[in-house]
Parts: sequence; structure tokens; C-alpha cells
Amino acid sequence: MTPDAETLNPTVKAGILVDALPYIRRFWGQIVVVKYGGNALGASQNGARATLASFAQDIVLMSSVGMRPLVVHGGGPQIGELMARLGKVPEFRHGLRVTDAETLDIARMVLVGKVNRDIVSAINVHAPIAVGVSGEDAGLIGATQRDPDLGFVGDVTHVNPEILERLLAQNLIPVIATIGSDEEGQAYNINADTAAGAVAEAVGAAKLVYLTDVEGIRRDRADPSTLISSITLDELDGLVADGTVSEGMIPKVVSCLRAVRAGVPQAHILDGRAVHALLLEIFTNEGYGTMVSR
Amino acid sequence: MTPDAETLNPTVKAGILVDALPYIRRFWGQIVVVKYGGNALGASQNGARATLASFAQDIVLMSSVGMRPLVVHGGGPQIGELMARLGKVPEFRHGLRVTDAETLDIARMVLVGKVNRDIVSAINVHAPIAVGVSGEDAGLIGATQRDPDLGFVGDVTHVNPEILERLLAQNLIPVIATIGSDEEGQAYNINADTAAGAVAEAVGAAKLVYLTDVEGIRRDRADPSTLISSITLDELDGLVADGTVSEGMIPKVVSCLRAVRAGVPQAHILDGRAVHALLLEIFTNEGYGTMVSR
Amino acid sequence: MTPDAETLNPTVKAGILVDALPYIRRFWGQIVVVKYGGNALGASQNGARATLASFAQDIVLMSSVGMRPLVVHGGGPQIGELMARLGKVPEFRHGLRVTDAETLDIARMVLVGKVNRDIVSAINVHAPIAVGVSGEDAGLIGATQRDPDLGFVGDVTHVNPEILERLLAQNLIPVIATIGSDEEGQAYNINADTAAGAVAEAVGAAKLVYLTDVEGIRRDRADPSTLISSITLDELDGLVADGTVSEGMIPKVVSCLRAVRAGVPQAHILDGRAVHALLLEIFTNEGYGTMVSR
Amino acid sequence: MTPDAETLNPTVKAGILVDALPYIRRFWGQIVVVKYGGNALGASQNGARATLASFAQDIVLMSSVGMRPLVVHGGGPQIGELMARLGKVPEFRHGLRVTDAETLDIARMVLVGKVNRDIVSAINVHAPIAVGVSGEDAGLIGATQRDPDLGFVGDVTHVNPEILERLLAQNLIPVIATIGSDEEGQAYNINADTAAGAVAEAVGAAKLVYLTDVEGIRRDRADPSTLISSITLDELDGLVADGTVSEGMIPKVVSCLRAVRAGVPQAHILDGRAVHALLLEIFTNEGYGTMVSR
Amino acid sequence: MTPDAETLNPTVKAGILVDALPYIRRFWGQIVVVKYGGNALGASQNGARATLASFAQDIVLMSSVGMRPLVVHGGGPQIGELMARLGKVPEFRHGLRVTDAETLDIARMVLVGKVNRDIVSAINVHAPIAVGVSGEDAGLIGATQRDPDLGFVGDVTHVNPEILERLLAQNLIPVIATIGSDEEGQAYNINADTAAGAVAEAVGAAKLVYLTDVEGIRRDRADPSTLISSITLDELDGLVADGTVSEGMIPKVVSCLRAVRAGVPQAHILDGRAVHALLLEIFTNEGYGTMVSR
Amino acid sequence: MTPDAETLNPTVKAGILVDALPYIRRFWGQIVVVKYGGNALGASQNGARATLASFAQDIVLMSSVGMRPLVVHGGGPQIGELMARLGKVPEFRHGLRVTDAETLDIARMVLVGKVNRDIVSAINVHAPIAVGVSGEDAGLIGATQRDPDLGFVGDVTHVNPEILERLLAQNLIPVIATIGSDEEGQAYNINADTAAGAVAEAVGAAKLVYLTDVEGIRRDRADPSTLISSITLDELDGLVADGTVSEGMIPKVVSCLRAVRAGVPQAHILDGRAVHALLLEIFTNEGYGTMVSR
Repeated sequence: MTPDAETLNPTVKAGILVDALPYIRRFWGQIVVVKYGGNALGASQNGARATLASFAQDIVLMSSVGMRPLVVHGGGPQIGELMARLGKVPEFRHGLRVTDAETLDIARMVLVGKVNRDIVSAINVHAPIAVGVSGEDAGLIGATQRDPDLGFVGDVTHVNPEILERLLAQNLIPVIATIGSDEEGQAYNINADTAAGAVAEAVGAAKLVYLTDVEGIRRDRADPSTLISSITLDELDGLVADGTVSEGMIPKVVSCLRAVRAGVPQAHILDGRAVHALLLEIFTNEGYGTMVSR
Repeated sequence: MTPDAETLNPTVKAGILVDALPYIRRFWGQIVVVKYGGNALGASQNGARATLASFAQDIVLMSSVGMRPLVVHGGGPQIGELMARLGKVPEFRHGLRVTDAETLDIARMVLVGKVNRDIVSAINVHAPIAVGVSGEDAGLIGATQRDPDLGFVGDVTHVNPEILERLLAQNLIPVIATIGSDEEGQAYNINADTAAGAVAEAVGAAKLVYLTDVEGIRRDRADPSTLISSITLDELDGLVADGTVSEGMIPKVVSCLRAVRAGVPQAHILDGRAVHALLLEIFTNEGYGTMVSR
Repeated sequence: MTPDAETLNPTVKAGILVDALPYIRRFWGQIVVVKYGGNALGASQNGARATLASFAQDIVLMSSVGMRPLVVHGGGPQIGELMARLGKVPEFRHGLRVTDAETLDIARMVLVGKVNRDIVSAINVHAPIAVGVSGEDAGLIGATQRDPDLGFVGDVTHVNPEILERLLAQNLIPVIATIGSDEEGQAYNINADTAAGAVAEAVGAAKLVYLTDVEGIRRDRADPSTLISSITLDELDGLVADGTVSEGMIPKVVSCLRAVRAGVPQAHILDGRAVHALLLEIFTNEGYGTMVSR
Repeated sequence: MTPDAETLNPTVKAGILVDALPYIRRFWGQIVVVKYGGNALGASQNGARATLASFAQDIVLMSSVGMRPLVVHGGGPQIGELMARLGKVPEFRHGLRVTDAETLDIARMVLVGKVNRDIVSAINVHAPIAVGVSGEDAGLIGATQRDPDLGFVGDVTHVNPEILERLLAQNLIPVIATIGSDEEGQAYNINADTAAGAVAEAVGAAKLVYLTDVEGIRRDRADPSTLISSITLDELDGLVADGTVSEGMIPKVVSCLRAVRAGVPQAHILDGRAVHALLLEIFTNEGYGTMVSR
Repeated sequence: MTPDAETLNPTVKAGILVDALPYIRRFWGQIVVVKYGGNALGASQNGARATLASFAQDIVLMSSVGMRPLVVHGGGPQIGELMARLGKVPEFRHGLRVTDAETLDIARMVLVGKVNRDIVSAINVHAPIAVGVSGEDAGLIGATQRDPDLGFVGDVTHVNPEILERLLAQNLIPVIATIGSDEEGQAYNINADTAAGAVAEAVGAAKLVYLTDVEGIRRDRADPSTLISSITLDELDGLVADGTVSEGMIPKVVSCLRAVRAGVPQAHILDGRAVHALLLEIFTNEGYGTMVSR
Repeated sequence: MTPDAETLNPTVKAGILVDALPYIRRFWGQIVVVKYGGNALGASQNGARATLASFAQDIVLMSSVGMRPLVVHGGGPQIGELMARLGKVPEFRHGLRVTDAETLDIARMVLVGKVNRDIVSAINVHAPIAVGVSGEDAGLIGATQRDPDLGFVGDVTHVNPEILERLLAQNLIPVIATIGSDEEGQAYNINADTAAGAVAEAVGAAKLVYLTDVEGIRRDRADPSTLISSITLDELDGLVADGTVSEGMIPKVVSCLRAVRAGVPQAHILDGRAVHALLLEIFTNEGYGTMVSR
């Protein structure tokens, strides 16, 4: 029978709190960038709601003990859903999806007006401390068009962290929708994994965490027992080179590699569907998922 | 022939700048709340774009000379448009439109993800100083359900201006979408005219300006020559009582009355479709539209 | 077999951390005054050392999560021990022990030079954040002679919390030896229980905790099952009046009553010999020992 | 017929304000040093009074929109006038005027006690923001004797901008009389053109403006149509070398050259007798007079 | 033979420094307003220069040990002297001297441009810490015309201490010439004794000191041995009522009475011609001259 | 007959105060580290008490006039006395005294609980500004064991001046007992002369003063007339090399040499038994004792 928190021996309880102490100390005042994927919000509405509530609680806990969390999110599935409802047929060029002006408008409405709002609301149930931010606000994410044929798909040119620093300085938690804009004010849809890495670099984060729908990186993709808990940059380069890292993981892994090379001490890939995954990764000795570091 | 700015006598030019001086001084450091209506963004796309650009320039000018502008916006027409595209049939109860969960989601997407973004972008073309804010952020607009039969339509219970004060203190311009939330985190759609008045009260604004699609209040609705340039609270109460104030103006007029009674020194109703209406109202001796004061 | 922290189900671990969240939030930035008794340091040296180490860890944890702990200590047994070694025979007048100049010197050496040092060192093993303070420093504890026949035994006249506030403002943990001084600079030995209450009042503490060698207040002194977990001021007055509160508990109980009446929201009496008693009292739903409140 | 500001088309008015916007933004928070010549105060009392009032209004407008103006002035004609009234006959040595102790006293009285006061008062009619400062105050202008035969005529050795920075930091407008002092506290009369340039360098001004009684630099001194609106350092060196720059302009031109070489981005020579010359130079596209820049 | 400082016994030297200690402590951070009379600067130039140097040294010493001195000065004899040199014949109406526009200009030149400068320079020989201020600067002394027949003679309506507080906050020593101005910016000559009292009230001075050419107040004007060293308000009222206080002392005595009634704890009348009178009054047990207090 | 302070000519008094002026100015805001030896507290109790009171007064005077004094003390004789009373027989190894755990406890009690307290109390009679600090507080003095055979005798590894800077920034006077600690929290007894030098280096002191029981360094140890008032580093190296510096002076002299080489501008060796020696050294032209400088 699994022991239940209420009936635990006091000494065991105290032990868990005491174990968390050095982690709380180490990350005091440090910025932790958390990428929360659109997938985690998908599937059955109820499951998603519970996962989001657990995620929000973790973020509030991190903030309560002195860390400065910062959330970056995507929303691919939700954008697809609204496009379908509007009868918008996806267009492809050279095999890649095209983002025309209307698609961009839809993406922006969903990311900024729906997904961002859902995350902000879930956090603010605890305390009024989350603030939704779009990459367009106060020049946050500068972007440039990737390829005229793809329309309004942008690459990050630079991140201006001023607005984030102001919010963090006020003990607020920025929740960022990854729309960028160029110098003429034209908006672009930005890959959220890449944006999270660029933000982590720009704000000097102590940790970058990707919450995904896999439990981490495996040496053998088919074998759960080969999950890697800690890996260096060089080893991970090797896994990318030999094709061990699966396709969907590429943007996350590349962003991890780049962010750590640029000075972020640790990057993590965790299964965001597990309840309190973030909390356990940060506050326990065993960690969770895969950690990338120098 | 209309004299053109380039060819004006220098003395006349200097005169206009000198006339603006006492207004710049009087409103230095003061907060001015501007309600920008969804109607102003409607009609033909090009006309709307030009109006929005002129509005954005006025807001940036106000900020440049030391005022602290704050924009509140609605988006009724745009919400109706997306609902129509999604084949959503408006439902009525007791003759009033019902906002069910899906309608609320649509309203939120349009207000926060489209209208708010368009205004923020138009300002940020000049300088990265606008920040989109939803009434849900950091507990900004507290709301309560108006009537269970109407679904998620909310009344403002209180405004927590802390997040606005933080942004203003950083010389940023908050642009507010009027979604509110109750203590459980449930979101509600809020009337933007009412919200603008409540925000003006809460932040201690020196001025509250409604940019609408009429040129002001007339003594005789049918006669443009009866436009009122300045009116007291009692006189305006009279015009409401005797039916002179037309139906669509009621929420604006009531909010003006309430805000001035609560201490906002001046409230204005102007035609936002006129180019630089806001600028002329604030910086010239003649003013513009109708001013309500004690 | 007791479940061990290392092998606990992750969900249980997360649950304990999540439970601690509201307590961490509630006491963020709040001052907690902890009276640590000389008895807890006595007995076998090894047991005392372990108890002290556990106490120090709890204090550091409190500080790490944003509380501002402040330690007040006595040292009766240790003073007695040095007097015995120096061959100093206690003198009594009217049945009470006399503190002559030499005894005061010995008390001061032991309190400031031994007990205070041991506590400061135990905390500073974790981080250099504890600072030993004597009540004489910077006019902290003002005192007056209780009775000329008793020599240098003093009553607290006032507490000047300035030095404490300065140290707390720097995130340092004051550890206070309860020597007071009068306006001529004459030192007095002060009862540590009373001093702890007066300090809690003066600094506006959110909690006052007495770590003693009993597990709390019992309705029936002989029956451990009658331990009171929460009691109001009036009820506790009753227990004092009817003699239920035992003699040695009087100064603690009186100080609790007085501090809560003066505005300290909660006062606690716990068994300081239990490992991590302080931690469990503060961070768990069940609490620990007896809590006195309005 | 000249169009009058009151009757101008609103669009034209708005256009002028909008044109001023980028200038207001560019000089926000920047220091602008304005040299105001004694000549501008001379001639008929009424004309001088009107010119001074217009100048004061321009300075207040600059301050109102966020610039930090700083006025440096001379007073040659006024000194001559008082000397004549006191029956003091100018003495010359090697063809240059000698400043003996009494002359210095007279210069100081006139500059600090009359001209400086008149300028400060004219500004303070609008708001209490001008503060008269002598170069002797708080070690502002360090000086050394130019030539023992000339008596108390000094050259600037260094400028200590601390007192100016303190006043500017308080949003006050320093008005500087150009008396300097050496290390023994001996006062010297300093050329105001030279002093203005040295002050502009020392405070890191964004602009240095000389208000004189000519409309700017001409390529052909006799031909008003050859007025130069913008000139580089090298070109101006050429005009000095070939004698195009007239004698009275030498100190101003040399100070412009030196200040721009030392990092002041723009120096200007304008006709200060024209109403609102300063205003038009700073806030309009066309500028006014001659601008020197790299 | 008078003992010389160099040859004094070290213990005596130490004693004098130790005696000064409580005074240095008591006035730490306190503002002391010192009225320095024009008479003290008069007579033979050499004597005046020595007196001024000794006065300046005392002011610098006060500042060095943490007091915040503030000097107010007049300049009657110096104004008379320049008027005579300019052949200006004093005009009288109803037996009082008239200050016409030209006389005001002369007064301003002498006070601001000569006396003020001499005092500032004398202090700045030690360190660049004195700043000349006219009552016209930044709205310092508000004035109103006393009597149209007397011309530009003003009474103090209010003192705006902001500019003084800013300078004091920067550890600078304001030296104030007592020219005031009304709301239209018209300047007036103000009695310096009265102005000193009003300034002392406005800045919350701890002491107001009049340096005059008498050694204090005597019970019997003719008998030096009746010098009063300390007197209460009521006693002094008596001396004024019975005519004991001589005519020239009236403005000083009235200002002392008023300032002490308004909350300045101590006002003093000393002989400023005695070397280091100010120093001895402030730093020694015996004091100097007459002290007025409640 | 020695002239007495009370009856001194005012001019002489003023002269002494004026002479002190440049010293007060030079050391304004500067840190002065004063080593106060245990010997000065020894001998007859009354003599010691008077010496301590005079020393405390000097420290308070220094603080009153803007210096930031910092006291470091030893307590050898007092430790020996308590050891004797406790019947503890000193143990020697290789001819050096061994500090076992019990001896360390005794040293700590005496230094922190007795000598430190006596100094703090003596200062706080004047004002509540002294704060006792042990080298163990907040990681102040880092130490390492000198020799296992000698037990808990430590050498300074580094000084962390943060706690001192915090206290000094609050205008408090730290009084430091020289117990150090290593990374495991183990305490060590530290030579106070050496510690004083290390502290002076770490805080960037302007002066380091050793108060001892000799009047300074002599060229001929036997001849008082050969007292050196000022000496350079090289000369002093010579006196050490040729044995002129006596044995007991070695640690002081070595610390002086090291501190001055590390950037402390002046180090002094004075006779602390002379009344107000410190005061006379700092505030008079003649100085006192021996000064070491580059």
C-alpha cells in the first residue's frame, strides 16, 4: 500500500522538506525558463485541465520560495483546431505549411487570446502574479521572415529582455506567447521551443526546462529503461549525429545545446504530463527526465 | 487655399507650439485614460488602418511629452464577425444576448488576441513602449456575474491598479482588453465603456476620453450646430433624464458622470474617426468634442 | 517498516512539498521569534549536539524560504555548571538566588561567550548568516533592577528593535543573549522567556515559538493524551487560574498571553528535543505542540 | 494675409505638433547649453524685455517637454554702462582692456547681480525652476590668469559640473554667470562664449546653441542669401582660415569647433533677436541659423 | 603670558576637544541659520577681511562636523556706498527711505553680485561647498509690497525651502541674499533680519544665530556687566515692552521671539566682530552672547 | 601652573578647535581600525576602568565627527586569569602553549563574553552605537589550524568584511573579538594584532592604530629620547633586521608593515595607557607615538 502524505511519519516528512533545502537555496533569485507545450493542453479537456492546474501550482511554488519562473508556450494543436473550425485548408509549399495573413491572425488569436489566457488564469487562481506577454510587447522578440514562400513564419533575430526584467523585478511571472515582430511592426509566428531557448539566454536563466509529452531522451528510443538522466553537450551532439534523437525532439534538443553553450548552466527535457514533474525535478535529489549540462 | 504646415510663417508655427505649452505642463506626469472603441477599427480596412495609425501617433506624442496615457478598448464588431465565420448563432434570453463558454472563448481570442494586438503593434511601430494587458492579468479587473441567464457577462466589482502603476512607472503604455475574472479565476466579458471609467477612477486619472463615432453630445440630436463643448454634471443629468442623450451614448455618458463624481476632473466624448482628434483636444485652446466636468 | 524518504513514491513527495506551499506563502517576509532553551543544550553532549544541529537546519530552512527567523536563548544550566567549577556558592536572599557582580560576569561569559557562540556556529555551518547579539548591543534590551536584594537581576523596560531590524533587513539571523542594560550602562541578567516575548512584540513578529522540554500544555498534567493543540487567550487564562499550568511553564505561558494580547498573532510551545519540531510546526497541516491565539 | 494660429485648419495645427514629435523624443533627458549674449538684452529696454520674455518662454517649453536646458550668459554692454556711470575710465595695456580689482567688482555685480537676476526672474515668472549660479559656486569654473598685465581676466582651466548635475537632476535650470576662480579663491572675468563651450563639453550636452545678433554664418559676409544652414568641422575650419568668418564671430566659431571635436554632437549659431528662434531651431524640420556638426 | 595652543599641555588640549563632543553630537545633521550682517563687512577693509575669513572658517568647521549651516546676509552699508558713488540721492517719504526701480537694481547688484559673492568665495577657499542663492531663485522668498509710497520694499509672505533642502541634502552651504519676488516676478528688497527668522522657521532650524556688532542684550544698556547670557520669551517680551531693548536691536529681537515661538529651539545674538564667536558659542560650555529660548 | 580648560583664553580654545578642522575633514567617512590590547584592561581594576572610559570617549568622538572607527581587541591576561581560577594548567608542546578544546571554550567565553562586552558597554554609555562581533559571525574571520600540536590556534586565511560594512553603513561601531572559524565551523583562537591588520586591509582602512603599553618605537630601546615619530617601510624593515625592534613588538610591527604594503596609508603604535592618546594622535598637529607609512 502506498503511504499517504497525511499518515506519514513526521520524521519522513521533515526529511523531504530538509532535502529540498539546498535546492531552494541554490535557485534563490534565479530565473528558470519553462517551455510549456501546446500538447500538454490537448487531448481530453479534463485531463488537460488537471495537468495545467498541477503545472500552475508548481510555478507558484517556485515563485513562493524565491525563484523567478518565466513561462514560454506554444499552441500548435489549438491553432489547427480553430483553423479547421473556420474551414481554413492548410496550404503547403515545398512540403512546408504556409502561414498567410489570415493564418497568422488565427495563430495570434489562439496563442495570445486563448492558450496564454488559460495559463495565466490557472496561475492567478493562487495569487494575482501572472502577466500575459506577447513577443510583440515592448519589442520583446525581434523576428525576420524565414522564407517568403512560407509567409509569416519568423526566425528570432534578438530578444530584448527589458520588459521581462521589469516584470520579474516586481515579482510577477511573465507568460510569453511566441509571436515576434520585425522593425516595421509586422508580426510573425515563431517556433516556441526556439523562442524559449533564446529567452533563457537573454535573461541569463539558471535553468531551461522543456515540458513535453515524452519522459526524456533515451539511448535506445524503443527501450524505456535507457532513459538518460544526465548528459554532456558532446555526448548529446553524438546522439543527434547518429540519429538517436527522434525527429520531434530536434528543435528542443538543438535549443538545449545552444542555450547551454551560450551560458545557461542546465537544460532539462521532462514529461509535462506527469503530475508535479517540474516540482520533483527541481526540489528532489533524484531529479526527473534528462538534464543537459557542460 | 488651405495653408500647409511646411510653408507657414515661422511665427505662426512658434505660436502653435507656445499655445501647447500650458497643456503640456498641466498634464505632465498625469494619467489620461483613453477608451478606443471597436467601431473605430471597423468599416473598410484601409480607413480603419489610417485611423488607428493616427490614434497611435497621438498616444505616442502624449507619452513623449510626459503624460502617461492608458488605453482601454472593446471589440464588439470584431467578435460578431468571428462568431459569424464560426457559424455560431447568437442566442437570446429575455431579449439579451447570452455569452456561453464558447462565446466567451471567442470574445477573449478576438479582444486579447486580435484587437489588443493590433493597437499594441500600431503604437510599437514608433517605439517599443506599449504592452498588452488583459483585465485578468495580475487581478486587474475583478468581476461578478451579472445574471446567470446571460452566462459569462460580468460587472466590474473592483479594479486593482497595481499592475498598471508598475507599467506606468516604467514609462510603458498599458493597452487593456476588458476581460475580467472572479475569485475562482472564471473569466467574464466586460463592457469596455464601463471598464474605462472604473480604471480611470482606480488610477486617479486626470482625464478620461471616449473616442467614439459621433462628434460629441448635442442639445438637439438632429442638429449638428447644437454640439455642446462643455457641460456640468447637473446639466448632463438633465439631458439623460429628458431623453436627449441617445441610447448608444448611455453607457459612455453614465461612465463619464460616475468617473467625474468619483474625482476624475474631466471626461470627454470625441469623434475618434477625425484625424488627430485626441491631439487637438488635449493640446489646443479650443478643445474638441464635449467635455464633462464639475 | 517506516517508509524512507529516498524510496517514497514521487507523488507523495510532491504532495508534501505542495502542502507546505501555503505556509511558505503566508509567512513570506514575516518575522518568527524562536526561544531556544538552555535545557535543550544540556544532558549528554552528543544528544545536545544533534538537537542543536537539527534546530540550526530548521532555522536556515525558514530563512531560505523567505521567513525572517530571530533566535532568543537562555543558558541556566550552563551558567550553573561554570559557577560550580569556579567554586562559587550560590547565595540566597528571601529564598531567591542572588546575582552579584561576579555571578553576572559569569552569566555574561557563558551566555554571550559560550551558548550564543554555539548556536551561531551551528547555523553558520550552512551559510554565514547568523550574527550573535547581546541585549546590551546598540541599546537592544533596556532593563531595570528588579530588587536590590537580588543584585543584578533585571526586568525588561523596553526593547529597541533598531539593531534587529537592520540585521533582518540584511537577511541576517540575529541570535540574542538576554543580557540587558540600564541607562548608566549597568548590565543585568534577564529571564529569557520574558525577553523573547518582549522582542516578539517589539519587532511585530508573526509567530513566537518556545522550544522547551515538554511537548506542550496538557489539560491534565499527568495525561499525555490531553495535550492541547490550540487554545484561546481566555481558555489559557483559565488554566493558569485553576493551577493546571505547571510552575516551570508559568513564565512561558505568561509571555505567550502577553505577546498575543500585544498583537503577535500566534504563540507556540513545542518540545524542542524532537527532531525538526520547528519545521513540522511551521510547514505542515497538523502543526505540533500547543498554539495560543486570540 | 498671414494665417493666424487661432483660425488655422485643425489638421494643419495637428501637423505642426506631430512634426515636433521626433525632436521632442530625440532630446528627451538631453542637456542643451544655450549661450545668451549680453547684446540681446541691450538697446531699447522694451525691445530687450520682449526678447528676454520670448527666450524665457522657449527655455521653459524645452524644460516642459523633458529637455534639460542650461543657460550661460555674458553682459559686456551692461558692464560698460555701469563703469561709465561710475566714471571709471577704461585702461588699456598693449591695446587690450585691463580688468583691475574695481573693474572686476563691477563686472561681478553686473553679471551676477543684474543680468543673471533678470534672466532667472524672466524664467521664474512661468514656474520656480531657474537658479542663478556663478562660476565661483561650488568650484564650477576653474580659472587662471591670462596675462598679469590684463589684471583679472581669466582662462578656463577646467569645469567641475557637479553642482550643475545636482541642479539638473532636480529638474532645475541653472543660469550661469561666467566668473571663474582659481585655487586661492581669486575671481576672474571669463569670456562667456568660451565658458559656454567648456560647460557643454563638461556636462555632455547634446546641443550647444549660441544666440547672437547675426542670423548665422554666411559664405559671403555681405550676402544674406549665402547663409549656411549646416556645415562640417572641416568646412568651417576652411572658412576661418580664409578669413570668411568675421572677427566678432571668432570666439563663438572656435568654441563651436572645439565643443563638437570634444563630443558635443551639434553646435548652432542663431539670431537671438528673432522671436522664438530657439524654439523653431529645436522643434521644426527646417531648423534655424547655422548648425555645426561632424 | 597667554598660553599658546602649540605649547599647551596635551591633557588640556584633549579636554577642550572632549568638551566639544556633546555639542557636535547634539547638532549632528541639524540646520543652523546664521544671519551675517553687512556691518561686519564694513569699516576698514583689512579688519573686515579678517572677520570674514574667521567667519568662513567657523562655517566650514560646522559643516565638517556634520551640522548643516545656512547663511543669510544683508548689505545696507555696501548699498549706500554704491548709491553714493553713482550720485544717487536717497529719497524719503513719510520719513522713510524710498526704494525706486533704480535703487532696487543697485541693491540687487550689491547684495547678489558683491556681498553674497564675497561670502561664498571666503567659504570656498576651504572647499567648494558654498552656493550663492538669491531669494528670487526657485521661488525661495515670496514677497509683497509693504507700502506703495516706499517703492520696492517687500515683506516676506512665505518661504519655499525646497531649493535650500535640495542644496543641504547635497552637503552644500546655501548663502542667501534677501531679495524676494511676488507672483508676477517683481523683485523686492527684504529686511535680512526678518528673512533670516522666516528661513529658520521654514527649514526647521535647530538654532538661529544673529552675528551683529554688539555683544548681546544687556539689562542696562549702558552697563556691559549686565549682559544677559540666557533669557526666556516672556522675559524678553518684558524688555521690549519697557524699552530696554534698543532701537537697532528691535528687528533682531522680534525675529528671535517669532522664530522661537514658531518652534526654533534657540536663537542667539552675538558679536560677530569677535574672532571665532560663532565657534565658541556652539562648541563650548560657556556659550557666547545672549541666548533666547522657551 | 598648568592652565585649565575652563579658564583658558577663548582665542586659545578656538585655536585648538580650528587646528582640529583639517583632520576632521581628512578622515570624514574614513574607516580607522583600532587594536585595543588586553593589557590596557589589566592591572588595578580602577586604573583599567579609567583607561577604558577615556578610550571609549575617544572612539565616540571619532564617530561623532564622521569617522568610522572599528575596534579589534585581544584578552590574553584575562584568559590566563580565568584558566588559573578554573585550575587549568597550561600545557606546552615544543615550547609553545597548547589550546585544547576546553582552553578554546574558556578563551571564547572571556573574549566574547567578557572583554568584548566591557568595551561595548563602555562605548554604549554615550550612545547605543557599539555592536559586539565575533570573528565567527557571518563568516567574518576565516581561519586554518596553525599546527595540530598546538590545538585550536588559527591563522587568518581571509577576512569577509561584509558584516562590518553593513554595520558601518548603519553608523554602528563594530567591536571584534578575534575568534575565527574554518569551513566546518570549527573555532580557533587568533592573534589579535595579526587580525587587526587583516581587518584593516579588508575594509580599506585609512589608518590602523595599535594601542599598546609602550610609547612607540625607539631607535635605542633603552633611551626614551630616541622615540621615532614617523618612519618609512624600508627604515622599519631595517630596525627589524638589526634586532632593534623588541620581541613583544614583532607581531605589531609585522602587521603594520604588511598592512601599509597592502594599501593602508598609515599605521600607528601608541601608548594606550595615556589618557586620550588616540584623540591627540588623530586631531592634533603633533601626533603621538610612532607612525609607519610609505
